[in-house]
Amino acid sequence: MTTKLKKAPELQVEKWLNNTDNITIESLQGQAIMIVAFQMLCLGCVQLLIPQAKKVYDMFPPNDLTVIGIHTVFEHHEAMKEPSLSAFLHEYNIKFPVAIDQPSETGRLPKTMSTYNMQGTPTILLIDHEGYLRAHHFGHISDLQLGAELATLIIEKKDAR
Amino acid sequence: MTTKLKKAPELQVEKWLNNTDNITIESLQGQAIMIVAFQMLCLGCVQLLIPQAKKVYDMFPPNDLTVIGIHTVFEHHEAMKEPSLSAFLHEYNIKFPVAIDQPSETGRLPKTMSTYNMQGTPTILLIDHEGYLRAHHFGHISDLQLGAELATLIIEKKDAR
Amino acid sequence: MTTKLKKAPELQVEKWLNNTDNITIESLQGQAIMIVAFQMLCLGCVQLLIPQAKKVYDMFPPNDLTVIGIHTVFEHHEAMKEPSLSAFLHEYNIKFPVAIDQPSETGRLPKTMSTYNMQGTPTILLIDHEGYLRAHHFGHISDLQLGAELATLIIEKKDAR
Amino acid sequence: MTTKLKKAPELQVEKWLNNTDNITIESLQGQAIMIVAFQMLCLGCVQLLIPQAKKVYDMFPPNDLTVIGIHTVFEHHEAMKEPSLSAFLHEYNIKFPVAIDQPSETGRLPKTMSTYNMQGTPTILLIDHEGYLRAHHFGHISDLQLGAELATLIIEKKDAR
Repeated sequence: MTTKLKKAPELQVEKWLNNTDNITIESLQGQAIMIVAFQMLCLGCVQLLIPQAKKVYDMFPPNDLTVIGIHTVFEHHEAMKEPSLSAFLHEYNIKFPVAIDQPSETGRLPKTMSTYNMQGTPTILLIDHEGYLRAHHFGHISDLQLGAELATLIIEKKDAR
Repeated sequence: MTTKLKKAPELQVEKWLNNTDNITIESLQGQAIMIVAFQMLCLGCVQLLIPQAKKVYDMFPPNDLTVIGIHTVFEHHEAMKEPSLSAFLHEYNIKFPVAIDQPSETGRLPKTMSTYNMQGTPTILLIDHEGYLRAHHFGHISDLQLGAELATLIIEKKDAR
Repeated sequence: MTTKLKKAPELQVEKWLNNTDNITIESLQGQAIMIVAFQMLCLGCVQLLIPQAKKVYDMFPPNDLTVIGIHTVFEHHEAMKEPSLSAFLHEYNIKFPVAIDQPSETGRLPKTMSTYNMQGTPTILLIDHEGYLRAHHFGHISDLQLGAELATLIIEKKDAR
Repeated sequence: MTTKLKKAPELQVEKWLNNTDNITIESLQGQAIMIVAFQMLCLGCVQLLIPQAKKVYDMFPPNDLTVIGIHTVFEHHEAMKEPSLSAFLHEYNIKFPVAIDQPSETGRLPKTMSTYNMQGTPTILLIDHEGYLRAHHFGHISDLQLGAELATLIIEKKDAR
């Protein structure tokens, strides 16, 4: 967990899958949030992050934790367009909302990925009920650690009521 | 987590391994405690509980969490005597203190196991900083859930200062 | 292994990836062959078949065994076009030749898949040095069994010289 | 597989478990044999060799392959005596015959372990139907490789009829 807290910047979303509403960090104020940034053809994402995110989504009640995916394509753009991602979500049985990160007009990195200074995928972002970015993990973290970090955010949210 | 809290009864220990002092629940007051009850020849203990307990012991600082093992032999008594357990701790590289549960004079179940009404092994007991038994899990629980439950106890302990 | 042997029908290939030549069953006469039929978004393929095929390809010398993949898309056609497959092979570090199965003009199943009467993916086909189809496995088989079946074909091939 | 073949020396057995007869290499002439040398408190044995040996025992018919364990204790002798081994076989559901290697009168290594020049545990020995030692693996080998090596011995045995 970082000590100098900053507000989590807003997501820049081209389109939502698994969801019809427009989800914003702003609209989730008061909620503990886990955002998983992935690419559908990133091996570390498929083997570790996606199964982990599904376990988290199944374990914590939606009132306690909001789980969101964001598809941050920064390579093989042709290979991971919306129909491919959509079939991927279906085949991997991913139920939580997934945002397609807005492509950049000028560069390789999509916009939310740039804004958050992500170093690649898989990345996990944890945001507390006040909208502060509390953790930014590039690469895999253990279930034990993730469970502990999520519980911390959930308890703070409950205590704040 | 249970809702009706009761104080965790004291351990009844024949001998401590990996430790020279006499550890009691009483003496650990103010600490969050995880107790793992196992048998060295129980397959579920060896494959799931012991690796999980080692990960917990490595991840959480001793100031946050005390990890203790208790060897609760209720079958194959001849097979799991102290020299065997001692070699097991060495070979499996278990560093946390392990109590040998006091054998019963009359029955098959050792004393701490009886006192806690354990149904078998593996069992995980979680005790908070005030000495209340907060969880009693028979069988395996996921790292994600365990991490969340441990974080809850640790936060309460820190908030209590 | 089946007892009534039949000659393995020819592959019907739209395009080869990881390979510039046109590979045919005919041209591989004298070789033991393992063909793995997969879809890049089939979970069982990604988790079990692909890692297994890579291990086989790494373990057996090319003189002993020819390993070939065939991408038999029968669902989500839009999602698994050539650029996606190509990126998949790159990201999953698949080095053996992979054929794109010829789409049917009329139906959902691609042509090689129909010819072989495949029931789905993952599928493993084993062909001996005389061109006979010796095994057709739909679903996962263990490494132990696959290793034994492959060794059988390889020994027959060596004995036939 | 080694190229210079030598006859497999005889086992020196204190006692057989899971078996009432006295099994010898001599008496198994005509059979393909896999011998797994292990210690019940050796982590690599428990995690890798024992599950692998059980899979082999379940997969290959007894007419094709004889599977034997040998308990070659060379450390923690007090910890791995017969009652402990016996409970271990029960708890790990090991059904194949297991020999207790004869302790040395003078040294640390038991007799069969010395005779075969084993470097430690886990060790796998493969003996063909003519009694030749065909493979001696110290440490883990993959299921794929083991399956292939076992099939080789089984085919030779069948061809010899």
